[in-house]
Amino acid sequence: MVFAASDYTHMSHALQLAKNGLFTTSPNPRVGCVIVNNDEMVGVGWHEQAGEAHAEINALRDAGNLAKGATVYVTLEPCSHYGRTPPCSEALIHAGVRKVVIAMEDPNPCINGRGKQKLQAAGIEVQTGLLAEEAGQLNIGFMTRMRYGRPWIRSKLASSLDGKVALKNGKSQWITAEPARQDGHRWRARSCAILTGIGSVRHDNPQLTVRHVETTRQPVRIVVDSNLEISLQAKLVQPIATTWIFTARDNRNKISQLEKMGVHVFVLPDTSGKVDLKTMMAKLAELDINELLVEAGSVLNGALLATGLINEIIFYFAPNLLGHTAQSMLALPEMTDLSDKYKLRITDVRKIGKDIRVVARL
Amino acid sequence: MVFAASDYTHMSHALQLAKNGLFTTSPNPRVGCVIVNNDEMVGVGWHEQAGEAHAEINALRDAGNLAKGATVYVTLEPCSHYGRTPPCSEALIHAGVRKVVIAMEDPNPCINGRGKQKLQAAGIEVQTGLLAEEAGQLNIGFMTRMRYGRPWIRSKLASSLDGKVALKNGKSQWITAEPARQDGHRWRARSCAILTGIGSVRHDNPQLTVRHVETTRQPVRIVVDSNLEISLQAKLVQPIATTWIFTARDNRNKISQLEKMGVHVFVLPDTSGKVDLKTMMAKLAELDINELLVEAGSVLNGALLATGLINEIIFYFAPNLLGHTAQSMLALPEMTDLSDKYKLRITDVRKIGKDIRVVARL
Repeated sequence: MVFAASDYTHMSHALQLAKNGLFTTSPNPRVGCVIVNNDEMVGVGWHEQAGEAHAEINALRDAGNLAKGATVYVTLEPCSHYGRTPPCSEALIHAGVRKVVIAMEDPNPCINGRGKQKLQAAGIEVQTGLLAEEAGQLNIGFMTRMRYGRPWIRSKLASSLDGKVALKNGKSQWITAEPARQDGHRWRARSCAILTGIGSVRHDNPQLTVRHVETTRQPVRIVVDSNLEISLQAKLVQPIATTWIFTARDNRNKISQLEKMGVHVFVLPDTSGKVDLKTMMAKLAELDINELLVEAGSVLNGALLATGLINEIIFYFAPNLLGHTAQSMLALPEMTDLSDKYKLRITDVRKIGKDIRVVARL
Repeated sequence: MVFAASDYTHMSHALQLAKNGLFTTSPNPRVGCVIVNNDEMVGVGWHEQAGEAHAEINALRDAGNLAKGATVYVTLEPCSHYGRTPPCSEALIHAGVRKVVIAMEDPNPCINGRGKQKLQAAGIEVQTGLLAEEAGQLNIGFMTRMRYGRPWIRSKLASSLDGKVALKNGKSQWITAEPARQDGHRWRARSCAILTGIGSVRHDNPQLTVRHVETTRQPVRIVVDSNLEISLQAKLVQPIATTWIFTARDNRNKISQLEKMGVHVFVLPDTSGKVDLKTMMAKLAELDINELLVEAGSVLNGALLATGLINEIIFYFAPNLLGHTAQSMLALPEMTDLSDKYKLRITDVRKIGKDIRVVARL
């Protein structure tokens, strides 16, 4: 399929609009829509929040009668089924649009290709694949959940330039500066959930809420706590946001105490008495978690990495050096050959304030 | 002093010309010169190699009679003394130039301000300070040697993203890829000398020559070898380039064997029987070393850092992870408080091939 320059312009615009929902659409995908009639943009829309109108509906409303005979650019295939809202494909047919250009088909098994077919059956010209890669990246969590039944798992690691996350004596707070921490909160805000381990809870007592950026939605907070040791006083179990705990220990008494505080406890032991991380991820996908941000210590991060459960790492390097006695960022089984190393692909490098941020994929 | 836009243009050009000597002028500074008459560029020149003509002389030759009444842009104060070549200030006076614009004054105590005074005494208008910072950076080693009596000490460290330089079992070769290694050779080529430790010699048997970039000059190779343990078969003592060894052990027999191979041995013990690193750096400045590139292991790097003898670090991060059991990049005394950390300022971050290069200053 060859697209015109104007097609790229409008689809880029639709992608920009989709990003308006970056912090809010969870668990839905981020979708943007631009309607063009006679080379003129007559309507724009994006999906804001689950349960509310989809991007196409908002754009059709914006366009009004001018949608008749128009071309619609939408970043994800219009839906064909009655979910929380009526199907967008029907609304597009009803509005009398002439042509629909789709960035990528919806991997949702309820839709996959059917929205497109419905449009075509109604005599509407349909083109797909325009800026598909960009649209997929914007909804990487949704895509991963639909395709592979697990979230997109992104770990955040903040260290010194020599890869240390804490002194030998454990001191670690504020390795990076404010701009990097604020950037970290943007990654929190776009995530459906944030995962940490009991070690971090004990050591740092974090809230794991989004604070340094504006958002109307708080991600779910998830703790991996194999022995169910979490203190009832921990900030994480206070009801300022949803909290889920995954444990290997079916301690009914502690579980009921936690449930009284509004915390949901999942008992998912593996054969060695720890939380079964793979099954946990499948469970999180069932629970509609698209993007999961891991903010944990070297042990849980190492375990996730060794189980093949990390897709992306956001490294923040502070411009300082702590030396070999300090704690390393990742606890991994000893390697005997360099070919055993975990290989990444660096997708972004930049300075954030005085620090450096590196984004890399496994 | 307020400079015109055209002044910036010509001095930038002179700085670009100066960079032609980046690999070759050692131990002299890199200097460029542009001569402008009636808004027209009539001559350019740069210093190529010690013992050969200075930048101003080359530019005057290029300008010929058009130097009369012209404005000369030169990145370093013209010299006033008879060194290996006659003084440039006299040549400029003799050519009848009207005005000289200087980026920075020469910190060389033989010149410092005197070149400028000579020109002024001859009725030539002199302006200084145009792009002085840029000119100083280009000759950071020369400036440091003249001002502080030691080289500019730059360490190169190549590690995984988690800061590891070798597996626990010592395996370490080729952590970074070819483009990063080639970049490393550019840093070698601009250095007057390359410093390593006996540990690296034993472990890697490096040549420490410039190979992946073209150059007409090989830096001096320096080994810190406190117990004078270096093998006579080590590549470093073969006569493919100059080699100096600093030791704490006055082993006459071994020294004379090494000297027969053309190696110069300096005996510089400190009170604990190791090489006195501070005194070694003063000695290297006496020996005309401007920029010193350290390519050593975690122990020598840590010792230099702890002695305050590293000015700049070039980090190469390969996109892989080796885990906490692998060897850390810097051996430093244990810190008990985060405020003990070594602080750096990051001056450059970029991708080089698949790797990342970070330049930072202490």
